[in-house]
Amino acid sequence: MTLRHAIGIDIGGTNIRAAIIDSDGNVAFKLKEATGDTPVETLHNILNILLSQRSWDVCGIGIAIAGLIDTSKGVVMRSPNIPKLTGINIKSEVEKSYKGLVLTENDANAAAFGERFTGAGKNLENFVLITLGTGIGGGIITGNNLLHVAAEIGHMSINANGKPCACGNVGCLESYASATAVIGNVISEIENETDSILKDLYNGNFYKITAEDIYKTALEGDPLARSVLREAGRNLGIGIANVVNILSPDAVILAGGLTGAWHIYVDAAIKEASKRALKELYNKVNIMPSSLGDDAGIIGAAKLVFEECE
Amino acid sequence: MTLRHAIGIDIGGTNIRAAIIDSDGNVAFKLKEATGDTPVETLHNILNILLSQRSWDVCGIGIAIAGLIDTSKGVVMRSPNIPKLTGINIKSEVEKSYKGLVLTENDANAAAFGERFTGAGKNLENFVLITLGTGIGGGIITGNNLLHVAAEIGHMSINANGKPCACGNVGCLESYASATAVIGNVISEIENETDSILKDLYNGNFYKITAEDIYKTALEGDPLARSVLREAGRNLGIGIANVVNILSPDAVILAGGLTGAWHIYVDAAIKEASKRALKELYNKVNIMPSSLGDDAGIIGAAKLVFEECE
Repeated sequence: MTLRHAIGIDIGGTNIRAAIIDSDGNVAFKLKEATGDTPVETLHNILNILLSQRSWDVCGIGIAIAGLIDTSKGVVMRSPNIPKLTGINIKSEVEKSYKGLVLTENDANAAAFGERFTGAGKNLENFVLITLGTGIGGGIITGNNLLHVAAEIGHMSINANGKPCACGNVGCLESYASATAVIGNVISEIENETDSILKDLYNGNFYKITAEDIYKTALEGDPLARSVLREAGRNLGIGIANVVNILSPDAVILAGGLTGAWHIYVDAAIKEASKRALKELYNKVNIMPSSLGDDAGIIGAAKLVFEECE
Repeated sequence: MTLRHAIGIDIGGTNIRAAIIDSDGNVAFKLKEATGDTPVETLHNILNILLSQRSWDVCGIGIAIAGLIDTSKGVVMRSPNIPKLTGINIKSEVEKSYKGLVLTENDANAAAFGERFTGAGKNLENFVLITLGTGIGGGIITGNNLLHVAAEIGHMSINANGKPCACGNVGCLESYASATAVIGNVISEIENETDSILKDLYNGNFYKITAEDIYKTALEGDPLARSVLREAGRNLGIGIANVVNILSPDAVILAGGLTGAWHIYVDAAIKEASKRALKELYNKVNIMPSSLGDDAGIIGAAKLVFEECE
């Protein structure tokens, strides 16, 4: 059988990633551009480059977007990380330069579908992908298929009277377990004069600390970095236990930079989840890292297209 | 087309309900027996009666069970309300007297499928049923089909450091919003000498108070009953907001005795959920009562059979 090709695009807060992908999931051509202040223009620029590649005949364009998406219309209902996309009809924008099949999906949903296609979830019928970055996102695979629901796992409250979240809810998982939460907790500990090698980074301008700085410092043994990551991990474990009790998946696949500190952050999550989830459900769950990394979204977006055009 | 028939059985903590149901969802013959101390014997007794009814030729038996079910084997992994069923292979038990198709499912899942078939969810593609009783259960319908997952919504933690639950988790929704929680909170308020007409029921033996007493008294204006129900409702609203953010359903259907106090308990839930859920998702959700009541489980169990034998 001849391979078909599709375009997968992943619009994130920092970069727009895009690729031409074949129906086996191989990336034939890939590019990346900073999302910038005019994300729609960046998208058009990327589309121009992709659509001028004459070596591949594509059967559609799939677009993963960081935010709440009305997939029936292709409209971004809300994008906290790319506020300029809120209200934009991405499908119509793409159709200005492409007349074929255009599909939109939330980025974490697309990433889950990508992991199902060629990644860590390749042989799994039921799993939940949790993306741990600036925020926390989720994507749910059941019966080998993407569940077309919001899966906003980061906005599940785990503390009824906890921290207010920008989303309007209180005690959201992402307020306790995301990279943003970890960075915030480290900064406030340093402000309170807790000792750490992190306070000497960036010539003492510790407000510039990144999640990567924190997990690398933690791996070197810094007590503050380790304790903040362990606490974030413990909270992640509470979220994972809820996900296990509700969705009884075969696996929870974790993606995102913080998983670089697997033996601190994720081990704490596993320990907490194992104490909290219903044991009959927990016993069958594997908690594992994603294998596609930043490519999961573009591969999943392309796979959504193949499901329609194959 | 000729109607087919199936047997639907719902094994609950108090009663085992059973019926012969036609493929339009009509109940042709129904019976109910107290679950008692020997639930497996009660089940065999009910099967004997049903299988001796010669007027209907059944194409299978569907069994809804209160507990965590391994549906591939038909085994009850855990049943907090019917401890004697834990570890029992219900499918094998039924096959002792019936050689055809036997399917098992969690009771709230079956009830959701029943509501989808002929009840409040008849015209809905995506909804979540929440059963509010001794515990809190859930069933999820997506794309018109039952999602075969645990859906143990009652064991979602909404308070990371909250009340310990018998399940092993901490801060479970059902510890705050179930009938058991409502009764416990009323009793502890009366013990602390909060005034209420409830304390005079049962000749002052207020430990006998039921959820029905509480919601009826609340409807008559009793301040204690109203305040306890409102607080339970507020917590239910936190759970509903989490469900909406994760599963973005078209409706949340509420079942169980406590919904008799809809304008106190459920109104408080709706108010809280409306403040907490992502507004784009909340705006499309209807929160509505179930329409099949206690029959939802048997109808859903029978419908599972029709899906296989039609």
